[in-house]
Amino acid sequence: MDRTVKSYEGDLRHLRDLIARMGGLAERQVADSAYALVRRDVELAGEVVSRDAPIDALEREVDAFCVRLLALRQPMAGDLRFIIAALKISQDIERIGDYARNVAKRAIIISGQPFLGGVNGFQWMAQMVQRNLKDSIDALLREDAELAERVWAADAPVDDIYTGIFREMLTHMMEDPRNITAATHMMFIAKNFERIGDHATNIAETAHYAINGAILPDERPKADISADLPSTQATA
Amino acid sequence: MDRTVKSYEGDLRHLRDLIARMGGLAERQVADSAYALVRRDVELAGEVVSRDAPIDALEREVDAFCVRLLALRQPMAGDLRFIIAALKISQDIERIGDYARNVAKRAIIISGQPFLGGVNGFQWMAQMVQRNLKDSIDALLREDAELAERVWAADAPVDDIYTGIFREMLTHMMEDPRNITAATHMMFIAKNFERIGDHATNIAETAHYAINGAILPDERPKADISADLPSTQATA
Repeated sequence: MDRTVKSYEGDLRHLRDLIARMGGLAERQVADSAYALVRRDVELAGEVVSRDAPIDALEREVDAFCVRLLALRQPMAGDLRFIIAALKISQDIERIGDYARNVAKRAIIISGQPFLGGVNGFQWMAQMVQRNLKDSIDALLREDAELAERVWAADAPVDDIYTGIFREMLTHMMEDPRNITAATHMMFIAKNFERIGDHATNIAETAHYAINGAILPDERPKADISADLPSTQATA
Repeated sequence: MDRTVKSYEGDLRHLRDLIARMGGLAERQVADSAYALVRRDVELAGEVVSRDAPIDALEREVDAFCVRLLALRQPMAGDLRFIIAALKISQDIERIGDYARNVAKRAIIISGQPFLGGVNGFQWMAQMVQRNLKDSIDALLREDAELAERVWAADAPVDDIYTGIFREMLTHMMEDPRNITAATHMMFIAKNFERIGDHATNIAETAHYAINGAILPDERPKADISADLPSTQATA
């Protein structure tokens, strides 16, 4: 095999490895932040906070490597789309890392207080978005357009759980003002998981484009639920 | 002048125009969402919601055009960095549009209730992040690395205002449970403006890289303030 071609393929493989590694780290951050939250594990939460920097560093590595690849290899068609997708997806993964870190920070703050409401909602949400994140990146790496479409359409249940948590926290706030601070943090935590789900959807959309060059329809089957809640709903 | 060169420059100019247009639309969305919020202008808020789609469409146009440019022109060095930057920045602007739409949606929900706290905080925050957004895109388009650095370092006041609003809303919640729903939306609105500021910082960072190829330091002078608040602070 031609040596240049071989090393070009090696380059593409390296880029795939970088994305896989970034995705793996982010998945773990999402899982651990949720675990730290529901188990009141301050130590683990602290680890999650400190483990965000390597994800940021990987994003920069992906960026620099993509620029190198584009400059030296002048890739075409599918390879070009994959590189563009890697650039965009690394940005999404970096944001996911930020949200997980934010969950961990808030988990530390409220660790001294009793857990408001059921832990199930948070665990489900975290598991779903972690799964969507994993699947969206798998879809990219395995060039599985069908899986990408599935993830892209799978965001609605996450939004439903988020809405449930949002309402539950409002109830806790109204029942006892001493719950207000913790419930507020819990709402923002739920919002963080919802945003992580959003970014997983973005990744799936980008992966789909990378695989077959076709862009998914404008309207995703998702809505910003809490902003769509009528204001009377919670105070009723 | 060589025709190919001329049309290559035309392509780059077109890409700059697309980014300028996207940035301009997003700026207006940020300004109008804040205006709709503080003036209780439901009609304007509705317009902001409906004006998000053109920004999303422009993001897709930027993506497609960048892929075309990379495939057909095989740009090098500064041009290549600019194209990569455009890809990343369009993603940031698209998110900013989402946040502005979310502000507008929440503004509609709480429009029937009296404004909690002072409007000044929100107006300042919105103006600051709108300014940072404008400056970060100007920095890219004018290749002004110094301006990019200035925006990159300018995010701290936004965070301070956000923290102030967050505390104020907690106080309103504790004073009267009937404020809880509206105060919660106000907190999320403030958080949206803070995130818009974050993305403006990202844009500045990317612009800086596009201009001189150098990456800004790992740690930005910004922190997620509400997650850093001790839990006792608000309940004290």
